[in-house]
Amino acid sequence: MLTYELTAEGVPLYQQLYQAIRADITAGRLSPDTRLPSKRSLADNLGISTITVENAYDQLISEGWVIARPRRGYFVAAVVSRKEPKAVKAVTLPPMPGNAPPEARFNFSGGRTAAEQFPFSIWARLLREALSHRKNELLQPPPGSGAMELRRAIAGHLLSFRAMAVEPEQIIVGAGTEYLYGLLLQLLGRQQLYCLENPGYHKLEQIYEKGGACLTWAGLDEKGLSADQLRSSGAAIVHLSPNHHFPTGITMPASRRYELLAWASEAGDRYIIEDDYDSEFRSRGRPLPTLFSIDACDRVIYMNTFTKSLIPTIRISYMVLPAGLAARFDRELGFYSCTVSSFEQYTLAAFISRGYFEKHINRMRLHYGRKRQQILELLRHCLPEGVCHVRENDSGLHFLLELNTSLTDGEVKERLAAKGAKISAVTDFYHHDSDKAALPSKGLFLFNYAGMELEQLEKYLKVMAKILKDADCRPPAMK
Amino acid sequence: MLTYELTAEGVPLYQQLYQAIRADITAGRLSPDTRLPSKRSLADNLGISTITVENAYDQLISEGWVIARPRRGYFVAAVVSRKEPKAVKAVTLPPMPGNAPPEARFNFSGGRTAAEQFPFSIWARLLREALSHRKNELLQPPPGSGAMELRRAIAGHLLSFRAMAVEPEQIIVGAGTEYLYGLLLQLLGRQQLYCLENPGYHKLEQIYEKGGACLTWAGLDEKGLSADQLRSSGAAIVHLSPNHHFPTGITMPASRRYELLAWASEAGDRYIIEDDYDSEFRSRGRPLPTLFSIDACDRVIYMNTFTKSLIPTIRISYMVLPAGLAARFDRELGFYSCTVSSFEQYTLAAFISRGYFEKHINRMRLHYGRKRQQILELLRHCLPEGVCHVRENDSGLHFLLELNTSLTDGEVKERLAAKGAKISAVTDFYHHDSDKAALPSKGLFLFNYAGMELEQLEKYLKVMAKILKDADCRPPAMK
Repeated sequence: MLTYELTAEGVPLYQQLYQAIRADITAGRLSPDTRLPSKRSLADNLGISTITVENAYDQLISEGWVIARPRRGYFVAAVVSRKEPKAVKAVTLPPMPGNAPPEARFNFSGGRTAAEQFPFSIWARLLREALSHRKNELLQPPPGSGAMELRRAIAGHLLSFRAMAVEPEQIIVGAGTEYLYGLLLQLLGRQQLYCLENPGYHKLEQIYEKGGACLTWAGLDEKGLSADQLRSSGAAIVHLSPNHHFPTGITMPASRRYELLAWASEAGDRYIIEDDYDSEFRSRGRPLPTLFSIDACDRVIYMNTFTKSLIPTIRISYMVLPAGLAARFDRELGFYSCTVSSFEQYTLAAFISRGYFEKHINRMRLHYGRKRQQILELLRHCLPEGVCHVRENDSGLHFLLELNTSLTDGEVKERLAAKGAKISAVTDFYHHDSDKAALPSKGLFLFNYAGMELEQLEKYLKVMAKILKDADCRPPAMK
Repeated sequence: MLTYELTAEGVPLYQQLYQAIRADITAGRLSPDTRLPSKRSLADNLGISTITVENAYDQLISEGWVIARPRRGYFVAAVVSRKEPKAVKAVTLPPMPGNAPPEARFNFSGGRTAAEQFPFSIWARLLREALSHRKNELLQPPPGSGAMELRRAIAGHLLSFRAMAVEPEQIIVGAGTEYLYGLLLQLLGRQQLYCLENPGYHKLEQIYEKGGACLTWAGLDEKGLSADQLRSSGAAIVHLSPNHHFPTGITMPASRRYELLAWASEAGDRYIIEDDYDSEFRSRGRPLPTLFSIDACDRVIYMNTFTKSLIPTIRISYMVLPAGLAARFDRELGFYSCTVSSFEQYTLAAFISRGYFEKHINRMRLHYGRKRQQILELLRHCLPEGVCHVRENDSGLHFLLELNTSLTDGEVKERLAAKGAKISAVTDFYHHDSDKAALPSKGLFLFNYAGMELEQLEKYLKVMAKILKDADCRPPAMK
């Protein structure tokens, strides 16, 4: 019987067991076709859980060291089916774009949310119920636009949260907003000119470009997207986040919203895509009505996602089309299969309709609100007002730091990176054609607090404070 | 306390309860803001399960008849939040394209699989384990190409099932093959000329067209896609199903596979997209090696899905890119988020690596094999050889019926439709530009047996037999 000491600190038990068995196989102490102990007996022998053994066996099987023969057991594989664990061949792995460089241990601007607050056990229970009681529905593919039950639940949610009265038939469910943007491109036509906010979310630009759309940009003023620039761009469709602009955090006031709706109503092929991505997290007061709800001319497409309000691994987003566009969607794109599994749709529908989503949002709002207060305190403590001004407006999960320094944005970023911290400047989010020297927003940095860990934050705020202090103590010539 | 008699035959209990409560609300017997009993007390009172009450309350809530107030209970809604259940307003619902017309009670050519064989309880257990033991992974978004554990499991599966040795990094996981076709278009470029099989799967044409690709078609001979027509089409990329063509069922022999690989190797921008959609269900012998596994020039992209082999509501598909293309995918399209939730990825990975997928496939193969035999018997019994010849080759979940009749394909379809049965002719799957009068495949009909119910089939085979008999007994002038 295999016996190991699994006493390494900080390494999960299943991983230690996996490594121990693998070592025995590579060293030849366990030869090909040797039958491994059953999970229960090995677990009993080592005084660990069967789940731990199962996870270790899983990894050995998936890398080809061990083979599972149903009803017969687990056997050491013959040499030819083995594959070296990919970590060993690290040099051949293509780099993963979009991740923080390995050296950054803290990210001021990262997009993580406080996912550990997610009520896993409730979700698990609802999933089990869906599996037990919805077998009939689960045996059929859902309608292309999503299961009616989920669309009804979303409509109910929009009514109480955003005072939007929509028919479920107007709602299209998809596996992420990126997928839905692609569908919109097909529906509205990629030959149209699409206008994005500048600065804005860079990934949006990539998605539209890869989707084959013609793009243009309009700048912002203190009220958000400039209606004048939009008009002179000649675009037919504009994509914006009026509730909480990324990255500046600006909430578009009512007057500018009316200007945009006026623009949209002037021609039959104009549309506004309203991206309401973190509207659940306004800390005080109610958010302004959505453009969708004050639109009298069926020109607004509303988009939102559960990815930020639940956990990033549940990929369910939706868009609400004005009625005429919804009918056209069914005619022209109705052949597409839905991209979200029914299990998850029915689970989410129950999660919303039984009040758990509302409870969760309220709890997260309190949690983020408290966290925001603590962080603002910490900022005041570590970076005095003359050095750092916080620009925030009780909205969403990020705000801006305005740093009063002679360092350029690039220098701030480099010096932080040298100390293991990553930060994004608002200037990073401008379209590359912009004349960066002329940009008014030097010294503005994105502070995304949702996933931050307070002790780490304090440590790196002190690092930042020192960098700023040192820079401003030196005579200019030495920079 | 609400008390109802729930004795209707054939109507699920929760639906009866829902209807009873709704009737009380609409009739005013339950007025707005009335507090409904707790689920447990109502269940106890009516002698039914709490789950039944929960489902009934769910539906009432999602339609706005009842409101859930967390920690306080369930209350009859005020009038303004109620929405008529959509079934009442049937006339305003946009038609769902792609569904059988409501009058068809039996579909000879429908695509359903025997989903009721799916091991729900095993899937549920693995899902629960993923939820309990993978919390760390579940709190992070998965890599854009999919969770590494699932990609390793798929690589292991391809090795044992299809003798394909691939690195997990070559595998891209997505929410359905339709979504992956869209990604391929972006990767390979929509300005390229794409060639489809004619006849072929009509939805493919819609997906490529909506994706903005330039399309052309190549016909088939008895070996499948014609290499000559492909060559003269000038296309750079061809999309085909060599293992089991849809709808003809032709399995491409090795000689034609080599011709295609030769075509692909002649120019650096040529690719073959190999759609292996139901290769698990060959009833006898091993399938021919995939084009991917005999390709020496990195020209083949292999695609498959779990949708047919599991159940249609789990939307997980994958493609395997040749190494150079995989690296390019990471560089150019690596910014996309994965469209499949981590829960499902880890569950599927465990389902595969612990041997359940292989067990399931074997069981389904036996099931479909037995079903195929019974159906072939039934066909011989109801439609004698002179009238109907079955063209099948032990492959996949569909085959062709060759009907010996003077009726046109359209007349066969109409007369069956008049009796409540739907059937597709092979001529339906030709590109609309094809000269239909010249097509050689008159009288060939698609028989998709996987989801068929045998009693119903016997009934409608007799209907078909009568239609054919009546047609051939009449003098030609009367048609």
